[in-house]
Order: sequence, then structure tokens, then C-alpha cells
Amino acid sequence: MNPRIKRASWLLSTGALAALALATTAQAADAAPTASLADLSSLRVGLDTVWVLVAGMLVFWMNAGFALVESGLCQSKNTVNILAKNFIVFAVSTLSFWVIGWGLMFGDGNAFVGLKGLFFVSGADNSPALGKAYVGMNTFMYPLGAATPDTDPSLYAGDYSSINWTPVPLWAKFFFQLVFAGTAATIVSGAVAERIKFGAFMIFSFILVAFIYPITGHWIWGGGFLSLANFRDFAGSTVVHSVGGWAALAGVIVLGPRLAKYRDGKLHPIPGHNMTSAALGVLILWLGWFGFNPGSTMAAMDGKAISYVLVNTNIAAATGALSALITAWILLKKPDLSMILNGCLAGLVAITAPCAFVSFSAGALIGVIAGIIAVLAVIFFDKLKLDDPVGALAVHLCNGVFGTLALGFFYDNDIATSIAALPTGLDRMGQTWAQLKGVLSVGAFVFPVSLVIWYILKATMGIRVSADEEREGLDIGEHGNEAYPDFTTSHK
Amino acid sequence: MNPRIKRASWLLSTGALAALALATTAQAADAAPTASLADLSSLRVGLDTVWVLVAGMLVFWMNAGFALVESGLCQSKNTVNILAKNFIVFAVSTLSFWVIGWGLMFGDGNAFVGLKGLFFVSGADNSPALGKAYVGMNTFMYPLGAATPDTDPSLYAGDYSSINWTPVPLWAKFFFQLVFAGTAATIVSGAVAERIKFGAFMIFSFILVAFIYPITGHWIWGGGFLSLANFRDFAGSTVVHSVGGWAALAGVIVLGPRLAKYRDGKLHPIPGHNMTSAALGVLILWLGWFGFNPGSTMAAMDGKAISYVLVNTNIAAATGALSALITAWILLKKPDLSMILNGCLAGLVAITAPCAFVSFSAGALIGVIAGIIAVLAVIFFDKLKLDDPVGALAVHLCNGVFGTLALGFFYDNDIATSIAALPTGLDRMGQTWAQLKGVLSVGAFVFPVSLVIWYILKATMGIRVSADEEREGLDIGEHGNEAYPDFTTSHK
Amino acid sequence: MNPRIKRASWLLSTGALAALALATTAQAADAAPTASLADLSSLRVGLDTVWVLVAGMLVFWMNAGFALVESGLCQSKNTVNILAKNFIVFAVSTLSFWVIGWGLMFGDGNAFVGLKGLFFVSGADNSPALGKAYVGMNTFMYPLGAATPDTDPSLYAGDYSSINWTPVPLWAKFFFQLVFAGTAATIVSGAVAERIKFGAFMIFSFILVAFIYPITGHWIWGGGFLSLANFRDFAGSTVVHSVGGWAALAGVIVLGPRLAKYRDGKLHPIPGHNMTSAALGVLILWLGWFGFNPGSTMAAMDGKAISYVLVNTNIAAATGALSALITAWILLKKPDLSMILNGCLAGLVAITAPCAFVSFSAGALIGVIAGIIAVLAVIFFDKLKLDDPVGALAVHLCNGVFGTLALGFFYDNDIATSIAALPTGLDRMGQTWAQLKGVLSVGAFVFPVSLVIWYILKATMGIRVSADEEREGLDIGEHGNEAYPDFTTSHK
Repeated sequence: MNPRIKRASWLLSTGALAALALATTAQAADAAPTASLADLSSLRVGLDTVWVLVAGMLVFWMNAGFALVESGLCQSKNTVNILAKNFIVFAVSTLSFWVIGWGLMFGDGNAFVGLKGLFFVSGADNSPALGKAYVGMNTFMYPLGAATPDTDPSLYAGDYSSINWTPVPLWAKFFFQLVFAGTAATIVSGAVAERIKFGAFMIFSFILVAFIYPITGHWIWGGGFLSLANFRDFAGSTVVHSVGGWAALAGVIVLGPRLAKYRDGKLHPIPGHNMTSAALGVLILWLGWFGFNPGSTMAAMDGKAISYVLVNTNIAAATGALSALITAWILLKKPDLSMILNGCLAGLVAITAPCAFVSFSAGALIGVIAGIIAVLAVIFFDKLKLDDPVGALAVHLCNGVFGTLALGFFYDNDIATSIAALPTGLDRMGQTWAQLKGVLSVGAFVFPVSLVIWYILKATMGIRVSADEEREGLDIGEHGNEAYPDFTTSHK
Repeated sequence: MNPRIKRASWLLSTGALAALALATTAQAADAAPTASLADLSSLRVGLDTVWVLVAGMLVFWMNAGFALVESGLCQSKNTVNILAKNFIVFAVSTLSFWVIGWGLMFGDGNAFVGLKGLFFVSGADNSPALGKAYVGMNTFMYPLGAATPDTDPSLYAGDYSSINWTPVPLWAKFFFQLVFAGTAATIVSGAVAERIKFGAFMIFSFILVAFIYPITGHWIWGGGFLSLANFRDFAGSTVVHSVGGWAALAGVIVLGPRLAKYRDGKLHPIPGHNMTSAALGVLILWLGWFGFNPGSTMAAMDGKAISYVLVNTNIAAATGALSALITAWILLKKPDLSMILNGCLAGLVAITAPCAFVSFSAGALIGVIAGIIAVLAVIFFDKLKLDDPVGALAVHLCNGVFGTLALGFFYDNDIATSIAALPTGLDRMGQTWAQLKGVLSVGAFVFPVSLVIWYILKATMGIRVSADEEREGLDIGEHGNEAYPDFTTSHK
Repeated sequence: MNPRIKRASWLLSTGALAALALATTAQAADAAPTASLADLSSLRVGLDTVWVLVAGMLVFWMNAGFALVESGLCQSKNTVNILAKNFIVFAVSTLSFWVIGWGLMFGDGNAFVGLKGLFFVSGADNSPALGKAYVGMNTFMYPLGAATPDTDPSLYAGDYSSINWTPVPLWAKFFFQLVFAGTAATIVSGAVAERIKFGAFMIFSFILVAFIYPITGHWIWGGGFLSLANFRDFAGSTVVHSVGGWAALAGVIVLGPRLAKYRDGKLHPIPGHNMTSAALGVLILWLGWFGFNPGSTMAAMDGKAISYVLVNTNIAAATGALSALITAWILLKKPDLSMILNGCLAGLVAITAPCAFVSFSAGALIGVIAGIIAVLAVIFFDKLKLDDPVGALAVHLCNGVFGTLALGFFYDNDIATSIAALPTGLDRMGQTWAQLKGVLSVGAFVFPVSLVIWYILKATMGIRVSADEEREGLDIGEHGNEAYPDFTTSHK
């Protein structure tokens, strides 16, 4: 039946029911017509879809945030290149996640990888399945096929069972998951900036989003072995941020540092060319995270849950910025703006996994610790001569790992029940142990696989621009453009 | 009755009904009170209104995108002028569309123009009309007064029948349509940049939004002759983008090229002054298009439709960017960033008409072709010495036309039925023919009328700044401001 | 009962009812199952929550707008400092409003201050309370405990009665009110820019959001004495903007002007360093205001109200920009961009109080007057040698006061009833008088208290940087950073 026609029957059927009710009683002259459950369900799907799409748009908008943060914290002579990388990475992600990534992540399969409906999201799927399955919404990350008192999976028929807990149409699910996948790829971009070949980055991004990200994603959100082992990651401290972080670390190692950074055995800081870009970028990311975390409910019916997650996210962002400010003020004598900005991002990354599992006080503390980690980790990576121009490793890798573990340290079973609807019943020690196993599993896969891919790219097409091009700037070398041709800069 | 009091009766009436039900059965002790249809309908109007307003806000936000793209792709000495033009154009559009534009576009009238409720949106209107008319939602662009199995127009009473298919209040309809009208005016801004007088542009914009845009809009979305002739344009490849494009082409011809562009019979490219602005601007526009196209459902009840349209829009944006990248890499030897950006916009413009009528594969292909067209058209217009500083003609005119025709080439009647709810039943040849007639009709009206207006403005107040002012920059000449007074630029 | 399990009973209970209905009639074979009122109410809470959170996100996004407007209108050498101030002010506001601000503003208490549930929003609260209390939505600012035909407060149980009219969870209320509080603090930032010590500003911001803002806020939105005296302020011309403005005026007086501004008895204008930032910032603020004003319904069920408020907001922004443009064109001979931008903001500030109480024609006129006031006030404050680098006093203080009074001048009881649902029944003279009393009460508290705090900060830690640091720029002095190190600027 044409969906339009099906919906057309709304008032007729409910009108019929009202008429029926009238017939049974003489006093019913002024009874209002009643609403049918089917209509209410349609409305619910509409509301949930609007929420998921708006949240997804906010996460998409984070592409602008990353583009500005990364280009702002790098040199003016590489601005066009960084903007182009950050722009095209989402286009590439769109293709690779559509072609194969979604299928590997959410297709029904085994504990390690999706196998059904692999290509072009073409598997069978009757989303949004109406009926009892709806009740399972918010029962985020239920292991594949697990029966619970709240769910009756028999009503869902299709190849993407693990994401049937959200009552939205398939393409809303796809869009929301796509923008998450794109975020992982974008994290790599900053760490390898100012020396990587444009073509090599595009190819690595395609592989990351097509294969690496969805495979570990399947383990956690696709019904795989980590979801069965009580590992919890509400919105992706591990699934998104540390995956991007491990891939970035591998790239940083294989690429080596920028020529100017550790000359003569000393650290030569290379300041960012545009702090307006960097600050605007982080404000965009802060806003985007209000889609990233609260949107991970993938349903709007539980207003309490999305409100709670949003406030916890905001608190950690605030304490992360303040703690990095204070840490930098103590260590560096002045409140360095780039440290404040990275501290805020660190708080956001760290609260991403635990936002629906811990109290606000814990959220505030997680932000404080994340801000300190961010500052110390930047210094630490410089000691190791791992050159990360924008601090992506400190923010996404270190705090992705920390946040995932923090879900264990601060785990609260009541909040896990009422907000995430995903209690494990473990104590904090036990939950931390489950988290640690997940963190190690993901790192043990993503880091070496990324290393291999970077080495293959290096051996075949080359991944690093020439020393001359690096000195002159990648904008001219890779793109034939200048970002600010009207202005006099010190690099010309 | 006060609407607040009316709503106050919600629980009383439904409570009464429940009580009634209880009275009829002895076993009913624990029956839950039922929801009334009136309450459900109110909630539906609320949801649809939130969706339409949020989508409208995203389209409003495109003003920032256009301001950044256009100023970024022009010279620093004209930045204040371009920002001022792009800022004030929406203020002017607000007035002109309120005063007369809406009435001409959506007022009941004849096949060519609206006649009722012309001024200040002051016609009779009982939106959101409750009842069966709701069922007609998503039956986008139904010809005026046409009866369908799904609609019963008798429930709507007012002067704006052609837009009664969306169950939102009149002022939500107005806002959403206003931001579309403003977009058309903004397209002109880029093409005539760096030489037009500020006052002349303001006057042309007022006329465009008050008269030209709403008249062709009436033909297509206001129940006019093109909607009756099976012409389809889901979100405005023609209604918005090619209308803006034709008006821009007329302006480019009457103004002539910038002095520096085609000196000595050769092409002298004038690079944009700020690629950070340009890239951020296109990311804003990409985001805004998630309001532009999915919002054109003007209702949220059908979650499938808005999800589908959004994903198709995103796919075409991605393939547009990638295909322009590859085309530029081949033709220009390097992946020029401004070409990547314009390729993305080209994909977005092209998918705007067909997004709810074609498959995702077709959407991907439309993006690919649009990206190629964008690059080639920029080269083509330069050959003709039609000087368009930002590529607005290549993006909005060429791809507005292409996208409208592509709806025919790739027309899929099943998708037109289930997503757009506007099937024509024609085959692809027939639909393409209907599309071509619409494209030609609109061009045959907008282009000559715009030419005449530009010539009248030229003859009366003058439209082009002096050669000295053009060389010195319009910022000082027109506004007495500099955009970046602290910086040393090569133009000073 | 676990909320998840409670919701799980949705279909069971409604199914039971349907079964019941079937049992009473023989002809009922094809009757559709009916929706329960509890389910509908849950859905309503979900929709209202989505609207309130999305609107709150838009207001949060205004932080980016203020950061760009303020840094853009100041000198490049102070950019890092201004960005850092605007970034960290929301982090500080988050803490201070969470710790104590919310409790003082919305805690049940006396006519002057909240007393219950003071710290960490830890008071009792059963939001979203289901039942009749819902009916009171949109009955904005009902005085504490007042009984109306529409409300039955007995269903709400908690310490925050004055904000129980909105049917959203407590943490959605908190987030929405937090972003408003943050806005007030951010207004101060611009006026004191280019000479204030970073640490002193952080402490003042904490005090403003923890104590000053919530106390006057309690008078108006927390059930205090002004709400009982028919004072009306729909979205905060007084509560937010003039409070921020009074605090800023005190700071400007205690700080004194920048050294370079009024040298040798003459006015030396100091142009902003980046008009791209300024224009983008105002476009962000314009967008953010679509959350600020329409979101102040704090519920989405009444689509008409939010649509009306949004359109009125947009009209005043447009006429504000145009009237400032014309005023500047007449007075300054050219359409100065910063005047256009401030005119738009002036219109937005002025329409904030009256948007739900006046007609669109009145809204347009309010914008026109606001734009004129903005231009004249900038000139006026310069005459008084009150140095406000970004025009914050002209925009927020003068037009906050004007807009609040304009609610009286243009008061329309029908609109107040149908849109704001807060009629007073007064005539325009009486309403203006009520407004004036509120304006004076707030000013008489905020201005002297702010003065005292600024003087205490001056006497203890010092609030102004050294003359050398001011000349060299606060970026190096306060933060050790430069905003644009690659570029050659005239200040180096």
C-alpha cells in the first residue's frame, strides 16, 4: 500500500472507532474522537527521525570545526591543503561508508564483522518496524539477538538487527552513523598535517572508513564480541575518537616530524597562523558535541535521557577548558589559548563514552582530569618527537582511552539504568576491567593495521611531500593555490 | 475560544471519554485513559512546525555561507562591500517578500500570478487547518484546487490554497518560503561583485524578491501553469537557483567584466583573498542544504521521506566535490580548492530538484556530472568574457538547469510516489520534456525582465562604480571601511 | 518503577483498552487500537524537550557570535585575549549557574530571591510532571503559586515551582536557562575589551552569573515581585540584555577608556581588525536569536506561538539593520558596515521583550527605532568618553531598556493572550508604567552592585593591564600568544 494512502486512513479509522464507542453508550454525545495507536506510532517515528537527523547535522557541522581548528593551528602556507583535506574527507567517507562501511559495521554477521547486506546498504530492512520492538529504544548496544523483557526482535525483519533498537527509518540511521565515521577520519587529518601528500591522505581515509572503523565499530555497536563482554561506550570515546587516534599515531610515526620542529635536538614550537579560526573551530565542535552525545540516544521519546546527557557533556567541556587553563597557567606561566581550546576538546572526548553512565560530579571531574591530560600529553608527545601539529593525539587518543576507562571508574548502575538503559550490574572494578579489555582490543587492531597501511602507501605512492615543498608550503605544491594571496606573510 | 483554554480541555475531554468507557464495562478498572485525536493533531502540528522552522533556520544560515564564499573568493579590498551586500540582502528580502512577494507567489489567483491576500500576508487563512486536509501533507505542489483521493480542500478556508498541503501555521510557511526567496537574491550578489554600486544592488534585490522570484515561483509552487503541466522541482533547482542565476547573468552582461580580468585580450585570474572563508562558507552551505531539501517536505510526519532526501542530497554533494576535484586535477594539473568547493555546491544545486524523485545511484551520478559541469562552465564563461568572480553562473544557473532536467533523465515513478508523493506517471522522455518546458519558460521570463531592470538602473542611478574606485577597492569607496586595517596587504 | 519498564507497558495497556472496547461490541472486529493519554504525554514531553534543547543549542552558538563580533571589532593585537575571554566565560558560567545561580533564580523563596534547592540544582523536582499541570505550558512567568483556571499546581512537587509551566525535564530547563545566563556575561566582555585583566574578568563573570543575574532574574522569571506587578519580558530584553549592559557600563566607568581613544581631547576611532569576523558573528547572533526568542516558549506544542515570535524577531532584525544603514548613510555619509551590524543586533535586542506581545507592524517599527538608537548611542557614549570598543552599551543596554518599554507602547492584549498567553489586561499607558518600574528596579540593583564589585576587584587584584601591555597588545602580555603570527601587521 502506498504510504500516503496508508496514512490517509488515519482519521477514517479513528473516526470509525469513535463512532463505535458512541454506539455503545447513550450518554456519549460529546465524546471526542480518540487517537489510534498507529497514528501515535507514526508521530513518534517522525519525532525520533527529526531528532536523529538534527543531531546528525550537528555532527556533520563538526567537519567545519575540525577544518578550522586544524588549519588555524597550522601555518598559513599550508592552509589550503588542510582545508581541502578536511573538506574532501567527508566526501570520501560518504562513499566508503555507503559502499561497504555500513555493511561491515551493522550487517548481521559474527562476533567480529558484519556479513549481510554488505554493499550499498542494500540489505533487507523494515525500519522503522512498528510494534513492540519500539519499546526497546534506548537499549543501546544490545548484543545481537539477545532477548530482553523489553524487546521482541521478532517484529524486526532485516539484515541490520543490531541497530534496530532505534525506531527511525534506515536512512536516518545511515546518516547518523556516517557522520560519526567521518569524524574518525577527520581526526587523522590534523595529526599528519603540514607534510602529507594529498592523494595518500585521501586513500588512507577511504580505507579507514571503509574497513578499519566499521570492523571495530561492529565489535562494540554492531553486536560483536565487546558488546557481549559488558564493554560500554555511549557515543564513541573508543569507537570514534581512539580509533581515529590510533590511526593518527601510526601516521605520525611513519611520516616523521616536520623538518622545522625538532631541529638541532631542540623543540621549535610552530605557532598556528590563525587563532580566530582555532577558537571558532572549537566552539563549533562544542556545539556539534550536543548532537554527538545526546543524539546517540537515537530517539527523542525519553526527554530525560537526552537532557541529562547534554548537561553532562557541557559540564565536562567547561571543566576541561578550565582545568587546562589552570594547568597551562601553572606550567607555562600564562593561560595559553590553544591549551584552553584543547582542554575543552579533551573534556568532550573523555565524557563521550561515560556521559550516560556517570553522575554530573563525576562528569565534572572527568573534564578536570581530561584537561590536565591534554596539556601533559602535548608535552609528552613532543618529548618523544612524535610531531602532531594540532594536538590530536593528546585530545582524541589519550582522552578517548581515558574517557572509556573513566566510565568504569565512575560507573553508576542507577544512571546506567535510567539514562543509558544499558546497566551491566558490575561494580566499578569489574566495569573498569571490561572497559580496559575493550580499549586494548581496539588499539591492538587499529594501530598495527594502520601502521601496515601507512607503510604500504609509503612504499608505493609515497606519503610525504618533498622537503622543498614542505618548506615552501603545501598550498602551492599540492594545489597551486594560496590561502591569503593579498596579505604579506613572513613565509614569503 | 482562547487557544490556551481550548488546549486546557485536553485532559478533561479525554478523561471524560475514559470515564465513559469505564461506565460501559465492569472489568475496566485499570484501563488507561485514551488520547484524543484533537490532541494528537495538535502535537503533530507542533512537530511539523519545529521541523519546518529548524529547516528554515538552516536555510537562513546559508546567508552566512554565501557571505563567506563570495567575500573569500574576491579581493580583500572589496570584502566589506561584499559582506554588507550579503548581510543587507536578507533584510531587504524580508521586507519585499512580506510586503508583496508572498502574495504574488502563494495567493490564489490565475495560472500566472497570485491575486488574493497580496499585501503583508494579510489574506484569510485558517492554517493549520485541522481535519482531513492533513492527509494531503507532502503532496507537494498540487495544482490549485485539484481534488485528489487524499485531500479534501473544503476544510481549508483562505487565500493561500496552494500551500495548504503542509499542516503548519501560516507564519511557519512564510518564514520557510522567505529564506528561499532570500537565497535567490543572494546568488546574484556573487556574480556582480567587485564592481557594482551598493545602492543599485539593494534596489535590484528588492525587485527580484518582490516581483520576479514570486511570479515564476507561482507558476511552479503556487499552483500556476507549470505545476499543472507535470513540471517538478522538489526544492528549487529552478525556482530558486536558476532564477537567481538568470538574474545574475543579466547583471554580469550589463555590468561588464572587472577592469583587471580580461586586459590585453588575455585572461588574468584574480585569486580570492581568503580561502578559509571560502571553505567555511561551503561547509555552511552544505549544512544549510540539509534544511533546504529535506525541509521542503514542510512536514516531519514522514520520517522516511526526509531521511531519504537528506541522504540523496549528501551523496550528490560528495560526488560533486570529488568529480570536480578529479576534473580539475586532470585539466589544471592540481586539485584546485575553489574548484572542489564549487563542485560540491554544483552537486547540491543539481540534486535540489530531483532529490525526491530519483535513486541514490542517480543522485551520485547527478553529482558527478554537476562537478564536471561546474569546472567546464567556469572555463566557458571566461571564454565568453562573462566575468563572474565567484562562479555563481557555473554553480547556480548551469546546474540549476541541469538538475531540473536530470529529474527527467533519472525519473523513477516509485520514488516519486513514496518520497515526493508527487508522481506524474510519465516515462523519462516525457518527464524530461516537461522539465525542459519549465526551464525554458522560467528563463524566458527571468532573463529578459532582469536585463530590462538592470538597464533601467544603469540609465538612471548607475550600477557600476568608477574605475578609480574599482581599483582602490569598494570598501573605502562605498563604505568608508577597511576589512583588515591592521594587516599589510599588497593592494595598499 | 524503571522508566524503561514503565514505557514498555505502553502497547500492553493500550492493547488492553482496545481489547476492552472490542469486548463491548460485536461489530468491532476492525477497530484500530487506540493510543493512551500517557503515551501521548510522553511524546509531548519528547517534542517539547527536543525544541527546548535545539533552541538552547542555538543560544549556546551565540557564544561564537559574540566571540567573532567582539574580536573582529577590536585590534589584531588583542584577538587572542578576546577569544579566550569569550570562550572561557561560558565555562565559568556553566559552573556558577550550576553551583548556585539556578537556585537563586528559580528556587522557591520570597519575592526577592530563591531559597530552596539552592546548590547544584539539587532541589526536589518531579519534572516533567504529568497531568493537568501540563495545561499551563506557555503561561510564561506566572507568579509563584498563583492559581489560574488553566493550572493545578498540586501536580507539581518540587522546589522550582516558578518554572513548572514548561513540560520538559529539569535538565532541559537548566540547559536553556544556563545559555541565557552565559549571554549576559558575554555582553560585558565586549565593553571592557582591550584593557581588562583576564583574571579579573573571569572573577567578575563568575559573580555576575552566580549572584547578580539570578537575583534580578528571580524578580521577573522566578516568581518575584516584578512578575507580580504585571511586568513582562518575554525572552529577556531586561533579564539578559540590560542586566549585561548595566554590568558593562559599570566596568567601562571603573576601567576608563583605552589610552589611544580620546588622546588630546579628540576622538580617535580605533577600527576593528577583521570585518569578516564581525559580519559572520552577527549572522551567527541573528540565527541564535531564533532560539533565544521562539525557544522562550519552552514548549513546541503551540506551533502558532513559536512561528509568530520567530517572524516578529526576524522583521525587527531586518528593519534594525536597514534603519541603521540609512541613519549612518545620512550622518556619516556612507553606509558603515559596523553600524549596519549593530543596527541588526539592536533590533534583535529590542524585540526580545515584546516579540510575543506586539503586532508585526509594531515589530517593524521597534526595529527601525532600535537601529536609530544604536547609531546615536554610539556617538553619545563617545561624547561622554565612555569607551566601549564594540558598541555593547548602545546595543544591549540602550535597546534592552527601549525594547522593554516598547512592550508597553505597543502592547496588544489579544496578541499577549494568544501568543504569549500572558495578558495583563492593562492599557498601553498602564503597561508602559509597569515596564518602566521594572527597568528602573533592575538598573537600580545591577548598576551599583556591579560598580562596587568592579571597585573591589580594582582595589585588590587590579583590573587593568599596564600601559605598556595595552600598547603592545594583551595577546602577548596576558597569554603569550599571537593571533596571526605569520602575517605582517601595522602593530608590530
